[in-house]
Parts: sequence; C-alpha cells; structure tokens
Amino acid sequence: MPLLPAAEPLTVMGAGLVGSLLSLYLARRGHPVQVFERRADPRRAGFQEGRSINLALSDRGWRALEGVGVTDDIRQVGIPMTGRVMHDVQGNLTRQPYGQDGQAIYSVNRGHLNRRLLDLAEAQPNVRLQFGQQCLGIDLKKQALHLLDTATQQEHTAPYTRLFGTDGAFSAVRGALQRQERFDYSQDYLDYGYKELTLVAGPGGSWQLEKNALHIWPRGQYLMIALPNLDGSFNGTLFFPYEGAESFAALQTPADVTAFFNRVFPDAVPLMPDLEQEFFEHPTGSLVTIRCFPWKFDDDVLLLGDASHAIVPFYGQGMNAGFEDCSVLNELLDQHGDAAWATIFAEFQQQRKPNTDAMADLAVYNFVEMRDRVADPRFLLQKKIEAKISAQYPGRWTPLYSQVTFSHTPYAQAWAAGQRQDAIMARLMPHIQAEADYDRPDVQALVEQEMAARP
Amino acid sequence: MPLLPAAEPLTVMGAGLVGSLLSLYLARRGHPVQVFERRADPRRAGFQEGRSINLALSDRGWRALEGVGVTDDIRQVGIPMTGRVMHDVQGNLTRQPYGQDGQAIYSVNRGHLNRRLLDLAEAQPNVRLQFGQQCLGIDLKKQALHLLDTATQQEHTAPYTRLFGTDGAFSAVRGALQRQERFDYSQDYLDYGYKELTLVAGPGGSWQLEKNALHIWPRGQYLMIALPNLDGSFNGTLFFPYEGAESFAALQTPADVTAFFNRVFPDAVPLMPDLEQEFFEHPTGSLVTIRCFPWKFDDDVLLLGDASHAIVPFYGQGMNAGFEDCSVLNELLDQHGDAAWATIFAEFQQQRKPNTDAMADLAVYNFVEMRDRVADPRFLLQKKIEAKISAQYPGRWTPLYSQVTFSHTPYAQAWAAGQRQDAIMARLMPHIQAEADYDRPDVQALVEQEMAARP
Repeated sequence: MPLLPAAEPLTVMGAGLVGSLLSLYLARRGHPVQVFERRADPRRAGFQEGRSINLALSDRGWRALEGVGVTDDIRQVGIPMTGRVMHDVQGNLTRQPYGQDGQAIYSVNRGHLNRRLLDLAEAQPNVRLQFGQQCLGIDLKKQALHLLDTATQQEHTAPYTRLFGTDGAFSAVRGALQRQERFDYSQDYLDYGYKELTLVAGPGGSWQLEKNALHIWPRGQYLMIALPNLDGSFNGTLFFPYEGAESFAALQTPADVTAFFNRVFPDAVPLMPDLEQEFFEHPTGSLVTIRCFPWKFDDDVLLLGDASHAIVPFYGQGMNAGFEDCSVLNELLDQHGDAAWATIFAEFQQQRKPNTDAMADLAVYNFVEMRDRVADPRFLLQKKIEAKISAQYPGRWTPLYSQVTFSHTPYAQAWAAGQRQDAIMARLMPHIQAEADYDRPDVQALVEQEMAARP
Repeated sequence: MPLLPAAEPLTVMGAGLVGSLLSLYLARRGHPVQVFERRADPRRAGFQEGRSINLALSDRGWRALEGVGVTDDIRQVGIPMTGRVMHDVQGNLTRQPYGQDGQAIYSVNRGHLNRRLLDLAEAQPNVRLQFGQQCLGIDLKKQALHLLDTATQQEHTAPYTRLFGTDGAFSAVRGALQRQERFDYSQDYLDYGYKELTLVAGPGGSWQLEKNALHIWPRGQYLMIALPNLDGSFNGTLFFPYEGAESFAALQTPADVTAFFNRVFPDAVPLMPDLEQEFFEHPTGSLVTIRCFPWKFDDDVLLLGDASHAIVPFYGQGMNAGFEDCSVLNELLDQHGDAAWATIFAEFQQQRKPNTDAMADLAVYNFVEMRDRVADPRFLLQKKIEAKISAQYPGRWTPLYSQVTFSHTPYAQAWAAGQRQDAIMARLMPHIQAEADYDRPDVQALVEQEMAARP
C-alpha cells in the first residue's frame, strides 16, 4: 500500500462494524484517521450490546475483510451454515442447502467481530480511536463536528477535512445532510418487531440443533430463526407483528408467552428455559428501511453503511452491504488516487445507490419467503429444480439467493436476473410435480427452449 | 354552533392558510384557541412573503371556507379561471376548458387570503394569535411546546392539552413525532426548481393575456405558467430542471436568460420587462413531496395540511387538500362530539391518509401532463372526446380533472376511477382521428360496449 508522506487527516464518525473496517482501509492506504464513536469502548468490561447478537457473514463481507487481510482472524469466530433447516409445528425438519457443496454463510457474533476490527484498527499507528463522543451536530460550512464527551459531559468542536459517516441507521451525520435542500429521505417501518431469545447449549457445550445451519420456524405471518454460537447455544429471534391476534400486543403475561410458544414452536421450548423472563426483559426491536440521496456533501462528507442504506435483516445482507461499501470505496481510491475525492464520492454514490436500493427491496421480499414460502413443499421443489437447471447450465443460471450471497454481482443486476429466472420458473413449474419430472423429455424440451430464449 | 361552557383550550402551531382556517373552525365550535406562528404578523407593514404568490382555489377549498361562512369575503379577491390557455413557441394559443360551463378554479393571492383568514380568526373572542413564536422542540410526554420569541430572543415553554400541527412542509411539530419509534417518513424532491416572475399589467390595469384562464407554456421537459392578479398583472412561474442543457445551471448571465426566453417563450417576453433582474433576484424554490404516518401522537397531537402531506403544485390542490382536512375534522367533531379526540384523531388519519397519498401521486402525474401532454393535439382531442362521453352519460363519467377539482369525491376514489377511464380511452382513441368521429356508428357502438361493461 502506498504510504503518502503528508496525507490529509480523515475523520470517521462511528466505530461500529463498517466504521472500524473503513478506518482500517483508510489507515492502510497511509491516511491518518481520527475515529469518533458515541458509545463506550466495547472491549471494556461491562459493555452492553445494543444490537442483534448474530449476523450472517457471506461472500461480499469476506471479500471486504480480505482487502485488509483479516479473514483468518474472523474465520476463527464464525460458524459455517450450509443451509436452512425448517421446523414445522410437529417438529419435523426439512433441509434446504443455501448453495453448492462448500458454500456457506457464517454465523458471527457482532460483538466479537466489532472488537476484533477495533483491535486491528488500533494496531495501525495512524489510527486514533475516541469513544464516548456523541455527535450533537455538524457545521457543514465550517467543516466542524460538534461533539459531546459523554464521560465529562463537556461539549467540544472537532474540525474535519473529510468526514465519513458510518454512524448507523440513526446517523447524526445524515441528520446534518438532511437539513440541506433537495435531500431525499425515507424511513419505513415494518408492522413487525423482533425479540432476541436464547436456545441453550447441551451438556459440555454441545449444539442441541444441527450446528451448521440457520434454523427457521416459518409460521405464515411470523417466524422465529436461530443462528449457532460457538458455545453451543443458539441465538433465536422472533419476528412478530406488533398488533393482532398473534402479536406482541396479544402476549401480555408469562402464561400467554408459554402457551403461545408451546403451541407454535413446541420443539424449541425445551431449549428455552429462560423464555418467559427473556421475553419480557429483552427489548422489542423495530425493523426499518432507510433510504436517502445524496450520500455526500460536496467532497467533504460521505455516508456509508446503515447511515445511507439501512435494511431489514431477512437476507442477512445489512453488514455485508456495508462492508462492500468499504471495498468499493477502496477500488475507487485505487482507480482515481487518494486525492480525487470529488470524483470518488460522486462515483461511489452513483454506483452504490441503485444496488443498495435493490438490496432493500430484496430484504423485504425475503421476509415473505422466510416466514411463509419456505414451509411450502412446492416452493422447496422449485428450489430443487432450479438447482438442477443451474447444474445443467453452469455459468448461465445462478439462483437469486446465490447471486446475492455467494457472488459479487451488483445487487441490482442480481435482482433483475432473479426476476427473469422467477418468470421462467413460473412457466416451468406447472409441468413439474416431483423432482424426477425434471428429466422427462417434455420438461427438458421446455427448459432448453427457455434457455435458448435467454439473452 | 355549540358554545361549550368550560371547553378545554386547544393549541394550534402555525397560522398559515390551514392553521388560520382550522383556528376559525375550532373557535366557532366554542373552543378557546391559542395560535402560535413562527413568522411575523403578515398584516403588518414590511412583511415579506416567503411562498408562492398565487394559488388556485377549487371546490374542496370553497366548501371548507363555506363551513365557517367566509366565502363571500374570499370571492372578492379571486379571479375565476375557466380553462387552460396553451402558448406554443410561435405564440399560437389553444384553449381547453377545465370543466363544464360555470365551472372554474380561482386565482387567489396567498397573502390576501391568509390575512383575511387571520382577521376573521382574530375577530373570534376565543382566539388568541401570537406571532414570532418559533417552535424549538416539543416535549410529547410533558405536553409542552418549547418556543423562542423571535423579537425578544427569550425562550419559553407553553403547555398544551391538544396540539394541532399546521406548521407546513418543514413542520417542527412533525419533527417531534418523527423522533418516535415506528414513524414512517419520506421527503422526495423533484429534479426541478421553480422561479416566480412577473408578467406586467397593460395600460390602466388591463390584462394583457386572457384574464379568466391559467396560461401554460408547455415545453416538454419544462414549462412556464401564469395566473391572473387583480391588478392586471400575471404571476408567472417557470418550472425548470436544476441541471442539464436547458436548466437553471445553464442560465448564468442576464444574456443567457434573455436569449433563452426569447427562443422558447417569445410571446411572454414583451410582458416581462424585469425578467433579467427578477430571474437572479428571486430565489429558486424546490419541489418536495412529503409523506408520513402516523399523523397523531396519542390523542394529544394531530398534524394537518402540508405538515402531514406536502405535495408538488401541479394539480393546484395543496391548499385545497389542507382546507379539506379542516372540513373533514369538523365533520368528525360533529359526528363524535368535541371530547372524543382519540376516536377523531384515529379516524381522521385513517380516512385522510390514502386520499392525500393519492393526491400526491396525482400532483406528480399532472406535472407530466402540464409540461408535455397539453401540447399534443391527440391529447387535446382525447379531452374533447371525454367531454362528449361525460355529456352523453351524465353522472356516469366524470373526467379525472373534474373529480379532483370540482367534486368532493375522496381523492383516492377519484384517482382509481380516472385510471379506469384512462384505460377505456386508450382502447377508444385508436378509432378516433377527429372530433366528429365520435358520432360514427362504430365508435358509438364501442362507447356503448365500454359503458355497459363498467361496474
């Protein structure tokens, strides 16, 4: 990496996952980097996690980590999940692989990952991390951050030359841009909240459900999922309507909760000894999609990650999209040089915006798939047929999930290709009642015809 | 109107058009009303208008004014516009009536109207108006407005029991609701700005263009419009891209402006002696659509008008929709009584939200119609054919524009009916080359067939 002799200092607001990775990228290019973070240092004792515990790291995320050479560090704390395991109300299991042999998404603990990235960033001589620094406002004209030191309760001002806003879905940096003329912005909440619940480990830290899988309890209008942890436990999350007959509002007492879980998630209940307590003690999280534009202010400020494109978690792509922001920015720096900020910021937002918009749509789309369609045998059959087409036409048919998760195809392009493939599947499936039907001459003829008609 | 003996005081934040009308409605129901307004009193000398000068008042607005008995006052300052007059590049004129004989929209001056409504509100013994009161924040839990007296620069707190936010597109009341969980919000800017320009009166205050019309210079990607004033002048507005070959960015010098206007609006230029000066002195306004939900906080706070649904001006419905909010709220008060605020606020937002969403879409749709389609002879022919169908099937076919402008049909219902009618017109028009074709037996048969198939 080129070490610039008198590089200008860069400022990063927000040292979560994206902010800490971005700082590493910028520091390794030779820039002095000043990082401010609202919360306390998560590596210090007694730190309380604010966000979801587990995340699914996939190819886009790995590539971004690779760019700063930290994949080995992270792989040690990730558990590969090679497929989904669906649990029906009787406790019957159905397995659906995520991709081909050897492909997996990785269950990682947010805290572990963030602390590791912070350690790596701090090990760079040109990175300075400051925690407990709340952004109260930004003077975009004077290029100054207005900060509150939460420990001393002293307000102070930090000038910046180049500011990167990686301060998450409720970004204070975006808040400053938002007060500018012609700033498009939207925040859309689902009528669903989420609740994190623990499925405990077995004796000796053993996994009581299949370890290398993401578990789903699809129930039509709602669902529970569980991701494996290194200690043998699983981190469960219930995605559930706020109101209605089956909803957070309807479960008011510990008895309500137990009765409901016994009825709809009976095979999970024995693994949830603290269910009643956790249900009422853990906060109910909300699910928001945030879109905005522009992502930059002149060549002074740039938003990345959730600050510019927060999405709902159902495709497991929130962190991956944020990490991909870092690798895309790094590519643009390679391409244009470390001084062409105006060009880089403009190209960055132009290139990324349609892709993160598509990802936001995909995430909502996958909510319906996960809570409802994965319980439908016809849907699972379709997935198997798709896998067969993909195997028969290598490189010419990649299932949508694989394009999003196991490729670096821009999200918008993946979504468009996925929609075209969906239309083909809608024409094929009426001719197919079982997996073996795929080999029937009439079906093969239809498949060939469809593939010949593809551009 | 019932005068309640010990009615609770109501608070209105914002004394623009909607706030002053709402105050009148609430006061006439017997409620003590406290009104705060950020700006100075517009009835005092030296007041500077911040917003567009002319508005088009139509049936929904008139009905709302009628509800507090002030139509006579307002009719004196309005000029009926019975149709559009399109100006082509050669200065040729084409006229299209807005509705049937006797139907018109009214050009009114925003300042006149606002001052008149304020006079009427202030004449109510139970209304108290306070100007120069900027809302800095709201404590929703303690039910208190945090205000800045702009004259004395003193901050103070005003408690409220019931707060109505009528403080416009950049509402501070909405800003407080927006910080609550699960508040959906969007602001979307067009890539167009607007510039107000004067077309002067002729000798003795005569109108130099047809007085009783809204004038349009449709130019495909942009347009100018002009509305008549009482003094013989017209208030022109150029709606123009911010960037591009023909755009605000491209007109940098007085010579650029003159050359451009001479080329594309040659018949208007002689009426615009101050064109160059005004073009650079008048601000460029932006065009935003704002949507949000919910519009209420418990039974304490309710948003009305632009605060909850700001739209672009191309259907002339922004003020009318805000005024309709007042008459709808009044109907709900009649229906449920002046104490059932929880029910009223909930029903209000449930009833109004889909309608103002539809109106927001209609306003953007009409932008394309005004800047482009009204210059197309086929489009104008279609409008004439529609008028013939409407006359032949009274009560069974009302053109979309008439439903929006000259009816009280909820906007969403009007929009849906308009789309169904558009689909019919798309099937009929290929058979029609001239107005007279409508009477051909084959065309008549088609029309009858379409009408018979309508629900």
